[in-house]
Amino acid sequence: MRVFRSVRAMSAWSGTLRREGVVIGLVPTMGALHAGHRALIRAARLSCDAVVVSLFVNPRQFGAGEDFARYPRRIRADAALCRVEGVDALFAPPRRDIYPAGFQTSVVVRDLSRRWEGAARPGHFEGVVTIVTKLFTIVRPDVAFFGQKDFQQAVVVRRLVEDLNLGVRIAIHPTVREPDGLALSSRNQYLSPRQRRAATVLYDALQVGCASIQAGQRSGERVKRLMQERVGQEPLARADYLAVCDPRTLEPIERIARAVVLLGAVRIGRIRLIDNALIGKR
Amino acid sequence: MRVFRSVRAMSAWSGTLRREGVVIGLVPTMGALHAGHRALIRAARLSCDAVVVSLFVNPRQFGAGEDFARYPRRIRADAALCRVEGVDALFAPPRRDIYPAGFQTSVVVRDLSRRWEGAARPGHFEGVVTIVTKLFTIVRPDVAFFGQKDFQQAVVVRRLVEDLNLGVRIAIHPTVREPDGLALSSRNQYLSPRQRRAATVLYDALQVGCASIQAGQRSGERVKRLMQERVGQEPLARADYLAVCDPRTLEPIERIARAVVLLGAVRIGRIRLIDNALIGKR
Repeated sequence: MRVFRSVRAMSAWSGTLRREGVVIGLVPTMGALHAGHRALIRAARLSCDAVVVSLFVNPRQFGAGEDFARYPRRIRADAALCRVEGVDALFAPPRRDIYPAGFQTSVVVRDLSRRWEGAARPGHFEGVVTIVTKLFTIVRPDVAFFGQKDFQQAVVVRRLVEDLNLGVRIAIHPTVREPDGLALSSRNQYLSPRQRRAATVLYDALQVGCASIQAGQRSGERVKRLMQERVGQEPLARADYLAVCDPRTLEPIERIARAVVLLGAVRIGRIRLIDNALIGKR
Repeated sequence: MRVFRSVRAMSAWSGTLRREGVVIGLVPTMGALHAGHRALIRAARLSCDAVVVSLFVNPRQFGAGEDFARYPRRIRADAALCRVEGVDALFAPPRRDIYPAGFQTSVVVRDLSRRWEGAARPGHFEGVVTIVTKLFTIVRPDVAFFGQKDFQQAVVVRRLVEDLNLGVRIAIHPTVREPDGLALSSRNQYLSPRQRRAATVLYDALQVGCASIQAGQRSGERVKRLMQERVGQEPLARADYLAVCDPRTLEPIERIARAVVLLGAVRIGRIRLIDNALIGKR
């Protein structure tokens, strides 16, 4: 496995492969890799000739007071996992190579970034969209792999690629979960054992919402209230938002007809967790 | 000469050339081509294997109340000029192919867009930077050619390319002028004969500024005042801004030491004209 630290070296290597017709898959990550990332890497191996994993804890997608400083960093373990999974190249650039002195450009996807995570975390999607644009122009992958856990991010990135003609196919992989339903996340390790038990309430609430829709409930408001009630039963959890949305526009749905996505964010102590459930065709 | 109307066809054609190692030059224009554009096309022919000219009157870089509706459009004459100049491909996409339904992404270069044209025309550079990003991702040129007349635009685009790793070399070509010094612009044709005579005052003011610096003047403020006085002598002209700036940061210079750019914008009736003069190495 090759490890690239510089933008120039990464770009040159993938450029050479691309000119030879090699299909390149990119798995963009902030490191602290877990089984969710492993699933993305395996999906990339199945459909691409060469797999690049990027590791970059992007300061611009963390808000003031968020967990940038304490976000888990363990590049050795990450590199070992990538090697075992047959990754071809690891791209782990230093911050100054991604944001050199004088850097001042931002990319924004407006409407889709406004609600939910965008409202809870001002500037978050601007940071995500800008780094994703840069990773795509540096690596120029044919396909990039994202987890469904960050549903809004995946929708925003798809729009970005279409709007800026980036020519990258966005593959969205189903969320990988613990046996009790908790979506895997690098932030789960912050949870105390008691908080960890409480954390399943988000998955449970989404399941309650899904069950009610499958049982015929058609009011978005009612489904939302059922999910809120479920979260309310867990004293350690506080709902940030729970919503019943159109999976393309992410706008709340009043009357459920076709496809729908249930979006949720809860706080357990200082830790914020998100999850979602997609019902019907996307 | 090939004429491409669709993004997909343009992208496919240039992709094929690129894989064959052909060096592609792009001259992005809003049409109404004049000798300034011709100079860019000729520069492209000299250093590239294939030359693409884009014609797109980009609504997003015009402000409310600006001249988008009446901006000159004459695609037949433009195509004829391109053919004579040996252009390989003309890219003239319809608006809906560049900005399809649901389009909502913007690219911004912050600090460099703030002053001068950015202050006079809110949203202008956001529109320019977004369309240039799209033209670069669609055509993927090796080199793109811009006129020095739009000096701030050229500086902003260079920053964009560096910040987003777009991998395009930006070639800036000296301003082409009428015999009396007036910088060529598609907007000059709006001028009445009397206004046309008055319009040279901007070039004259820049010359006054240059001469004073060459004679040893080192105060940015003094040079600026000399230029203002010269514009003040022309009753039909009103200075929008006249400035003595650092050519990299575009910030005003107090004490002139090395390279300097004189930037100017004047209004003649409803018509707004810009020009600049670069002194010393860039």
